[in-house]
Amino acid sequence: MRKIHDVILAHEEDRGETFLGSLWGKNPVFLCAIGTTETAKIPGISAAGRYPDLTDYTPPADVELLLLGRCKCIPGVPVTPEGIPTPALITMSALRLADIPALVVSGGLNVNPHVPFLDLGGAPGRDIREGRAVDNVEEVLGRARIVGENLAKIADYLVVGESIPGGTTTALGVMLAMGVDAGGKVSSSMPDNPHELKIETVKAGMKVSGVEFGSLAENPVEAVSCVGDPMVPAFAGVTLGAAREVPVLMAGGTQIGAVLAVVEALDRDVLCNVAIGTTRWIVSDKTADLKGIIAQIADVPILAADLDFSQSRLEGLRAYEAGVVKEGVGAGGAAIAAMAKSEGAITKEILLGEIERNYELLVGSQ
Amino acid sequence: MRKIHDVILAHEEDRGETFLGSLWGKNPVFLCAIGTTETAKIPGISAAGRYPDLTDYTPPADVELLLLGRCKCIPGVPVTPEGIPTPALITMSALRLADIPALVVSGGLNVNPHVPFLDLGGAPGRDIREGRAVDNVEEVLGRARIVGENLAKIADYLVVGESIPGGTTTALGVMLAMGVDAGGKVSSSMPDNPHELKIETVKAGMKVSGVEFGSLAENPVEAVSCVGDPMVPAFAGVTLGAAREVPVLMAGGTQIGAVLAVVEALDRDVLCNVAIGTTRWIVSDKTADLKGIIAQIADVPILAADLDFSQSRLEGLRAYEAGVVKEGVGAGGAAIAAMAKSEGAITKEILLGEIERNYELLVGSQ
Repeated sequence: MRKIHDVILAHEEDRGETFLGSLWGKNPVFLCAIGTTETAKIPGISAAGRYPDLTDYTPPADVELLLLGRCKCIPGVPVTPEGIPTPALITMSALRLADIPALVVSGGLNVNPHVPFLDLGGAPGRDIREGRAVDNVEEVLGRARIVGENLAKIADYLVVGESIPGGTTTALGVMLAMGVDAGGKVSSSMPDNPHELKIETVKAGMKVSGVEFGSLAENPVEAVSCVGDPMVPAFAGVTLGAAREVPVLMAGGTQIGAVLAVVEALDRDVLCNVAIGTTRWIVSDKTADLKGIIAQIADVPILAADLDFSQSRLEGLRAYEAGVVKEGVGAGGAAIAAMAKSEGAITKEILLGEIERNYELLVGSQ
Repeated sequence: MRKIHDVILAHEEDRGETFLGSLWGKNPVFLCAIGTTETAKIPGISAAGRYPDLTDYTPPADVELLLLGRCKCIPGVPVTPEGIPTPALITMSALRLADIPALVVSGGLNVNPHVPFLDLGGAPGRDIREGRAVDNVEEVLGRARIVGENLAKIADYLVVGESIPGGTTTALGVMLAMGVDAGGKVSSSMPDNPHELKIETVKAGMKVSGVEFGSLAENPVEAVSCVGDPMVPAFAGVTLGAAREVPVLMAGGTQIGAVLAVVEALDRDVLCNVAIGTTRWIVSDKTADLKGIIAQIADVPILAADLDFSQSRLEGLRAYEAGVVKEGVGAGGAAIAAMAKSEGAITKEILLGEIERNYELLVGSQ
C-alpha cells in the first residue's frame, strides 16, 4: 500500500491520491454525529462504557472533549473496561493542532452533552432485537442534509466522524438488511471481536422486523428504522447535503459501511466526492474487513492515518497497537485532515506528542 | 448621512466605512439566535403573533423560512395582526441571492423548529413581571461562545440576527437594569409604539427582582436572568466567541442594545470587531432612538441597509414604509451581507425583486 506523507492509500489508491490532493492546504469543518442505542447495553456487545448504562454518557462525553478539551458529564474521559481511553483524545488533539472547527449533530441521545449540538429531531435508538429501533429516520436525514448543505457553502470540505456505543452491531444490521455481506467483517473496540453475538443480535432484530438479507436494499430509511441506530441518518444526511458541493471525508471504521450504503441508495451521484478516512489499526485489523465491506457498496477510496503508538511512553496508548479501540469519533479522519491542512507539517510524531500531552492532562490527573 | 452603495453609514461613519470595507467580497455565516418569552403574551406588547400563544411559533417559523424556504410549524408565514409578513422574508431572500449559509442557535423555546438548531441548554423565558425570567444564562452564554469560536475559524465574518416576540420589552429590561437609559427609545413592530406598557412591564419586573436602574451594570448575567429573555445570552455568547477573531455584524433593531450591553460588560476588547447592522426603517424611526441607545454603550458603528419598499407592487411590503415591522430576523444585516458579498452587485432593487417573488410564492398562495 502506497503512502503519501503519513496517510496510507488503503483502497482505490489512485482515486485516494486525487482525493487527498483535493484536501491539501484546505480548510475543513469537522462534524461529529452522535446518538445512543439500547443495543449497546446487551452484555458483551460494546466496550465503549465500563457498565452498560454508562454507554449513554460516552457520546456526550466524547463531544465535550472535542469542544471543551475536557468532559463535563463524566469525570475523566470515556474508557474501555481495561481503562483504555476514548479515541476522541486523538480527534481533539488533531483538531487543536490544526485549528479545525468542530460542530456536533445529534441523531438522538439519552443524555445531552454540556456543549452546543445540532438537534435534528431524532430520538435515542431502541434495542434492535425488538425491531422498530429508530424513530424519525426520514426527518433526521432531511434536517442533517440542511446542515451539510449550509456548511458546504463555507467549508472547503467536511470531515464527519461518529460516536455511538454498540454502533458496529447496528451498522451490521443496516448492512445485512441492505444486502451488504458484512457478517464477520465489522470491527470491535475490544481485542476479542464478538462476531457471533453481533450476528445473533442482528438476526433477532431482522426476524422480529420481518427483514431478510438484502430485502431493504432499495429502502435505506426502513433498514435504519428497523435494525439501525440514530447516528446513521444524521451522518448520512450531512454527507448527502455536503457532498453535492464539496468533498466529504467519512471518518470511522467498519460502521461507515452502513452510512455509505444509505448514501449510495439515496444519491449515488455524490459518491465521486466521498472517501473513507480511518486509522491504520482498522485497515490492518485481522478480525474485520473494512475493504471487503466498502468494495461491496461503492468504489470509494479508503485513506488511513498511519498512526503508530508502539513507541508511546504511555501504556494506555500502546494498547491501541494490541487492537483495543482502534478508531472512533472520527480519529483517523481528523488526523488526516490535520496533516492535510498543515500540508504535511503535522506528522504522526507531532500528533502523538500532542495526544500524549492531552492524555497526561486528562487521564493522568484522574 | 453618507451612503456606500446601498448601505447607509448611520453612526460612527468613518469606523462604519472601514468595517463595511472589511466585509467586502468576503464569505460570512449568518446565525439566527432565537428564543421565546412569556412576556410576549402580555396583551398589546408584541405584534409578532396574531394571538398571544402564536408568539411561540414565530421564531421556529422564521428559521424554517430561512433554512427551508417555507414554514413547517405554521401554515403560510408569520404575520402581524394586520397581515404584514415577517422580516424573515427579507433575510431569506438576501441569504439565497448571495448564497450565504445559515445556522440557528436556540436560547430556549416553547416550540422547536422543524429544522436543525443548535441547542445551548437553555429554557423558554418567563414573564419578566414575575422576576427570575431566564434560567441557565451563564450556561447558554458559555455554549454560544463555543459556537462563535468554532465558526470564526471558518467564516470570514458572522452576521447574527434574532427572532423573539416581545424582545424589545425584555431588551428594555436588560438595558434599564444595566444603566442604559433606553426608556422611550426602543422600537416596536407596531406603528403605534406602546412605550408606556413596555416601561410599566419592565418596572414591575425590576421591582419584584429588587433591581434598580443601573444596579446590575456590572452583572449582565443577573440582568438577563431577572428581566431579560433567552435570546440575549445566545446572541451575546456567539458574538463574544467570534469577535475575538473575526468581524461580527450584530443585526437587528433597538434590541441589539441589550445584547451589546452584555457583550460590553463581559469583554469590551471585542467591540473593535463589532458593528450594528439594521434597516433604514429603524434609523429613521421617529418613535425610537437606536443611535441614542448604542452611543450610551459603546462607540460601535451603525450600518443600515437602504431598503425602500415604497415602490413595491405588493401592499404587504409597502406597509413597511408606514412603520410596520421595520426589522427582525437580522433582515438589515443579511441585506448588507448580501450586498457586501456580491461587492455591490446585489442592489436594493435586485433584493426587492427577490423579496417580491418570495412574498408571492409564500403569502400569495395562502
